[in-house]
Amino acid sequence: MDIEHWRKEIDEVDVELLRLLNVRARLALKVGALKKAASLPILDLDRERVVLQRLQELNDGPLDGRAVDKLFRRIIRESKRIESVSVSYSGNGNGNS
Amino acid sequence: MDIEHWRKEIDEVDVELLRLLNVRARLALKVGALKKAASLPILDLDRERVVLQRLQELNDGPLDGRAVDKLFRRIIRESKRIESVSVSYSGNGNGNS
Repeated sequence: MDIEHWRKEIDEVDVELLRLLNVRARLALKVGALKKAASLPILDLDRERVVLQRLQELNDGPLDGRAVDKLFRRIIRESKRIESVSVSYSGNGNGNS
Repeated sequence: MDIEHWRKEIDEVDVELLRLLNVRARLALKVGALKKAASLPILDLDRERVVLQRLQELNDGPLDGRAVDKLFRRIIRESKRIESVSVSYSGNGNGNS
């Protein structure tokens, strides 16, 4: 197998990763909307800690613990950003929801 | 649907994301080994640009372009780190491979 072969496989995995990252963002938007409706804060450090800890336990490599931590912190951060953008868009005080 | 329901769905997506991130890292290790065998550099900015550009074109949200860029730069960076760690582990000159 040559480099091009494995790169094509990486490209296929990336398409699936992109799809799942968007699925995750969509779910985070739903959570954000429910939090807003219940006047809960967007940031929940306890939940974040539980999520990251569980992924460490599930990880069997070759990514190491540091990589999993960095990757999922970035994934959570981008979800949060989407959540707060959405909340501020819909939170303009006109009460339509 | 309540917050817990969507969080359970997020947890399921995270397991699949973790699996795919490790699949991608494993493929990157193969590419790294082939590069090493061919005395090619680990870093290939042209390839990186093509990968990131293609993902921007494929993305249909809700993640925006900035999020996709940040996420995949992190994914590529962690793959690279794994590649170079592996290359230096196997490059100790004892020739066992």
